[in-house]
Amino acid sequence: MNDFSFRTTVELRVRYPETDQMGVVYHANYLAWCDIGRTELIRRLGKPYAELEKEGVFLAVADASLRYHAPARYDDRVQVETWVEEVRSRTVSFGYLISRPGSEESRPERLVSARTTLIALDRAGGTRKLPPDLLAALRGALTTEGAAT
Amino acid sequence: MNDFSFRTTVELRVRYPETDQMGVVYHANYLAWCDIGRTELIRRLGKPYAELEKEGVFLAVADASLRYHAPARYDDRVQVETWVEEVRSRTVSFGYLISRPGSEESRPERLVSARTTLIALDRAGGTRKLPPDLLAALRGALTTEGAAT
Amino acid sequence: MNDFSFRTTVELRVRYPETDQMGVVYHANYLAWCDIGRTELIRRLGKPYAELEKEGVFLAVADASLRYHAPARYDDRVQVETWVEEVRSRTVSFGYLISRPGSEESRPERLVSARTTLIALDRAGGTRKLPPDLLAALRGALTTEGAAT
Amino acid sequence: MNDFSFRTTVELRVRYPETDQMGVVYHANYLAWCDIGRTELIRRLGKPYAELEKEGVFLAVADASLRYHAPARYDDRVQVETWVEEVRSRTVSFGYLISRPGSEESRPERLVSARTTLIALDRAGGTRKLPPDLLAALRGALTTEGAAT
Repeated sequence: MNDFSFRTTVELRVRYPETDQMGVVYHANYLAWCDIGRTELIRRLGKPYAELEKEGVFLAVADASLRYHAPARYDDRVQVETWVEEVRSRTVSFGYLISRPGSEESRPERLVSARTTLIALDRAGGTRKLPPDLLAALRGALTTEGAAT
Repeated sequence: MNDFSFRTTVELRVRYPETDQMGVVYHANYLAWCDIGRTELIRRLGKPYAELEKEGVFLAVADASLRYHAPARYDDRVQVETWVEEVRSRTVSFGYLISRPGSEESRPERLVSARTTLIALDRAGGTRKLPPDLLAALRGALTTEGAAT
Repeated sequence: MNDFSFRTTVELRVRYPETDQMGVVYHANYLAWCDIGRTELIRRLGKPYAELEKEGVFLAVADASLRYHAPARYDDRVQVETWVEEVRSRTVSFGYLISRPGSEESRPERLVSARTTLIALDRAGGTRKLPPDLLAALRGALTTEGAAT
Repeated sequence: MNDFSFRTTVELRVRYPETDQMGVVYHANYLAWCDIGRTELIRRLGKPYAELEKEGVFLAVADASLRYHAPARYDDRVQVETWVEEVRSRTVSFGYLISRPGSEESRPERLVSARTTLIALDRAGGTRKLPPDLLAALRGALTTEGAAT
């Protein structure tokens, strides 16, 4: 009954410098795509991450894990689905599924699944609690059973 | 009785573009540093990775996990220790410890610990067995109990 | 009377890893954005660059120059305008204007102007002529006086 | 009569993620290598650039031009020579020559020549004068006729 969905989907197109000489996307770049997905999810929860930083809330990656199923290639359109997996007072974990959507010539394909845990820091780099409104929004996203966009 | 050590240590200096607006190294860049450590370990086991590719052996990352303990900063000297954790006929897992060595003014500090699993691919992108000499060298590195460089 | 315009405009949003510790986009990244603009222009001229490569035509940057007027920042929406500046049998030069479009709160702002010259290479890395259809399309784009998108 | 040389040479090894699917180093990465060369030149003139920033002096790239002569490849050792080309009260221009040193099997090869102009900014992003000691050191480097390292 609202127009938000808490399984955010972002679509992007693979850039030339994201490839390496193996002819596929270099594995570290998927972490940057997860960042894009997370940014959009946070934006849709109510406040752009850029504003959070201006208010002194920094979310630093504390933990990351990725499984690579199939490679993305130059000029592919890929999509990044992001959802909230776990919320605590100072940390939040996100899950990601990066895939190549199907087309007339090809079936959809799972490329990378990932999870990152972020910890809230203040300007001085010390840990702090997530702001109450962000905490509530993240918890809300968690219970919403990830309705697809 | 040989001058190789199978816990390879590489030192590098943090580059400006590796930082982000949080004033620290962007988290995805540590994966590229693990790659540098792994490249040096493989070189020291007998054959540069660049030559492996020329012979049709590609090592693709299948799995990666990282824990971020403390941030590296611009112009820091950091070191990447790399060792072999597990060897199978088609895959090999490496462990990494990225740290800031101590100096007169500071104690050594653990920055990131990581593990990646790589799978051997042929030119067409299909899985293949690790070449016998590489397999033997990796297994040797595994049993050598990681004598420090 | 056609729906192509030969001053292609691409819009993108600044990614976190594109920033550096100065709090702005690292200067080398604008070259990658020019690449995105050029890719779109070539696609609109009739054939994706990815297909050109499959046919053995590689366009390598031979020359680049950039003037930085104002910095882009994290999460900014920026646009890349691209046009053809000069065409020869083996080389083509593109011009770029990267800017921040105006909004209710801000005026449009010129960020970076740039020019790159690309040279056609074959699979072996030797220079070659541009394929006739691409050459004709690029020349057409040149004479079309850059009607804005 | 001193042990400084004002044509600084830095050696680095090409990293896997610096390559693209053309099998060579992506053209934007050479700008990052110029940055490394410039950082070392500034360090040798007396003060690390990291400390300049702590004192409120930021050097932002205002202008860059590059000519690409031949490509660097994965795992190549390349060297970056850097020198001062022009000094004004608020700006300084550096020249760069990136090359592959010769070996027993190969002759030295020029890869990229470049020039960047940097402008001094204060913390707020406004232009400012170069600090007197840095200005004097840069001017000294200029007149020293670039004795090779």
